[in-house]
Amino acid sequence: MKKVNIALIGFGTIGTGVVKALAGKRLFIKKKRGLELELVRIADKDLRTKRPVKVSRKKLTKKAGDILNDPNIDIVIELIGGIHPAKEFVIKALESGKHVVTANKALLAACGKEIFKVAKKCGVTVRFEASVGGGIPVVKALSGDFVANRIQAVYGIINGTSNYILTKMEEEGETFNGALKKAKGLGIAESNPTLDINGMDSAHKLAILSLLGFGRYVDVGDIFTEGIQSVELQDIQYAKELGYSIKLLAIAKKDEGKLDVRVHPTLLTTKHLLAGVRGAQNAIYIKGDMIGESLLYGEGAGEKATSSAIISDVTDIAEAVAAGKKMIMPEMNFDSGVSGIKGIGRVKSRYYIRFMAMDKPGVLAGISGILAKYKISISSVSQKERNKEHAVPIVMLTHEAIEMDLRKALGQINKLNSISGKPVAIRMEMR
Amino acid sequence: MKKVNIALIGFGTIGTGVVKALAGKRLFIKKKRGLELELVRIADKDLRTKRPVKVSRKKLTKKAGDILNDPNIDIVIELIGGIHPAKEFVIKALESGKHVVTANKALLAACGKEIFKVAKKCGVTVRFEASVGGGIPVVKALSGDFVANRIQAVYGIINGTSNYILTKMEEEGETFNGALKKAKGLGIAESNPTLDINGMDSAHKLAILSLLGFGRYVDVGDIFTEGIQSVELQDIQYAKELGYSIKLLAIAKKDEGKLDVRVHPTLLTTKHLLAGVRGAQNAIYIKGDMIGESLLYGEGAGEKATSSAIISDVTDIAEAVAAGKKMIMPEMNFDSGVSGIKGIGRVKSRYYIRFMAMDKPGVLAGISGILAKYKISISSVSQKERNKEHAVPIVMLTHEAIEMDLRKALGQINKLNSISGKPVAIRMEMR
Repeated sequence: MKKVNIALIGFGTIGTGVVKALAGKRLFIKKKRGLELELVRIADKDLRTKRPVKVSRKKLTKKAGDILNDPNIDIVIELIGGIHPAKEFVIKALESGKHVVTANKALLAACGKEIFKVAKKCGVTVRFEASVGGGIPVVKALSGDFVANRIQAVYGIINGTSNYILTKMEEEGETFNGALKKAKGLGIAESNPTLDINGMDSAHKLAILSLLGFGRYVDVGDIFTEGIQSVELQDIQYAKELGYSIKLLAIAKKDEGKLDVRVHPTLLTTKHLLAGVRGAQNAIYIKGDMIGESLLYGEGAGEKATSSAIISDVTDIAEAVAAGKKMIMPEMNFDSGVSGIKGIGRVKSRYYIRFMAMDKPGVLAGISGILAKYKISISSVSQKERNKEHAVPIVMLTHEAIEMDLRKALGQINKLNSISGKPVAIRMEMR
Repeated sequence: MKKVNIALIGFGTIGTGVVKALAGKRLFIKKKRGLELELVRIADKDLRTKRPVKVSRKKLTKKAGDILNDPNIDIVIELIGGIHPAKEFVIKALESGKHVVTANKALLAACGKEIFKVAKKCGVTVRFEASVGGGIPVVKALSGDFVANRIQAVYGIINGTSNYILTKMEEEGETFNGALKKAKGLGIAESNPTLDINGMDSAHKLAILSLLGFGRYVDVGDIFTEGIQSVELQDIQYAKELGYSIKLLAIAKKDEGKLDVRVHPTLLTTKHLLAGVRGAQNAIYIKGDMIGESLLYGEGAGEKATSSAIISDVTDIAEAVAAGKKMIMPEMNFDSGVSGIKGIGRVKSRYYIRFMAMDKPGVLAGISGILAKYKISISSVSQKERNKEHAVPIVMLTHEAIEMDLRKALGQINKLNSISGKPVAIRMEMR
């Protein structure tokens, strides 16, 4: 049985999980697959921090170069995160003929094209199941299992922190800040949760899903991204009364030959499969011309689930290495019939809108007149309170409208004397 | 680009779907994967029936031998179903050095061990993603993506016909027969739906899932199997009032070193992920020590979804064939720490029980006295009607009890004068 030599760069939380799993599951995988996975080296710039796993001192190094220059290493697991120096390490590994397994969504979103090209040129492969959806096998589903499908849409709840916060707000009436505090207390939110909450983490993952589903490298800068930081408890409650949940949704779908790709809080009918995804769980809904509607659900983060995905990638590569076979990076871009990105202004959507308006005759006529001018028709409207002194919330659901028109209409409505505060608009997704 | 030659045995509904897909997606897969999938031959004993797909007359044959003996064929897709002559065809194909892709769950459940052994000996492989859950990638998830996991439980709603019927009963108050009639009308149930309704189809699929999850060949005869034919509308309604859905569940889980493996109608709390699976959809819930709770959901049957899974298998094999690599059947059995099958009598479960009893003092005392004798404790009890003349339903939920004890208790209760008709007992699953 040929040993396959594995090295790890980045000995943080996930790295520790991988080390634990490779030690604990060594025999199990050997019996199950006839593979000897040998973790030979671990590099991290910080070797002082105590980790909850025992590692021989000899395996540890501060220098990634000790791994990248070692001709005996077959597979490098990159878990340092961020773009630099992760990118340089990954490229160096590939150029040295090593396969790479990574969970680094920011790196792949920013430099995937370049990295995959180098891998292909060097006759090695990059695997990244753990970069989206933790233990959920969505990368393999989109690239392999659903290979025969023309993908029509991919909708993901792919940020556990945001979903936890929105769930707490909806189910327990927490405010955003209260829910965030709880998430931090439970380790579901990091001490600096900016990238989770502002939608950027979802956007990175969506760039990867778009590549897999639609064969196009999407620049994260081209993904319209809105986080959950301005979602108000009252809107979650009004949405609930109307039969909707608000979720931070990553959306990629084909629309009139363009790729409509965006991340934002979204109203989903409570009957939608994704509406039932609670807490820090993740799920990806995929619609294809052959599979129809499909959903993959599971733990989207955490040491164990992420390590599970990393080890499945390692095992796949190790099987080829042990058999003396080459494993070549497949072409990632393919023609899926989309010719460009649909700008957010041209996106068609239904909307939930809330105005704070004075409770007096003629206000609704003013609002609906402006909406009508922009061809936005209203599917339901309700005034949530009565109060002669203060502004009261008016909640509307629209039929499908063009974002640009909606923005113009809201701009004009905002100028009406009877309206106070900025109108709230949240997109809806029906299918 | 090396052409990969594919042949199909069995030109029925699914076969037609595969032929359509191989024709329609040929260019797409070529561009996406650089693979030329060439369907060179189709065998079926009936070549008269009109199929809704155009096939050159030259490709058709009545003799499977024309495929099995043709050295130019790389991959055989077996879609005739049933055990004979499917088994002989598959073995002959393997012995002739051809890879096999099959959707035949009955064959794999009955003869998987033998077939996989032949494949291994002959240096070829058998793939069967389509045999369980249609377009849902559960076979690859269990065998590949979750490779590092010790699987703790697999629960499947893997028969669309049964799930459709139970959904109609629950949501629309249909009787079993009324729902079955609707299912037939929509083509969701076959004209002879016996294997779907009596649980055998689920048992075949469960044998495959058990092998993948727990590394053990389970004889279908060792799977305790109860279908939905005796599920009564009133029990669905009482369960619903109590916050439960009744689903035909295929269960495989580790319990005290044994494999607890069974198929039966099961009460699931409406909060369980599987309780939301409606209509003819399928879903498989998998619990592993690393991934935690995972759910794969989608279309479990139908021409398109099944063809999607078949083509993903074909593509995987074709990639190896085109690269001149061998693809060897992996060992299917492995040590998952289960030493045998848990007999149904020893299974521990909670139960929903309904008695038809006379509405008079002392009846409940009689019933609960017998239950207590067998150490079965009651978690809730309600009498559903009041009627001095006729027997009325008494519904109980028990705490965890041993099946054998429950059966004995029910036998005794059945003999009470105040009880009319046979007691109904339905197992519950909590996790």
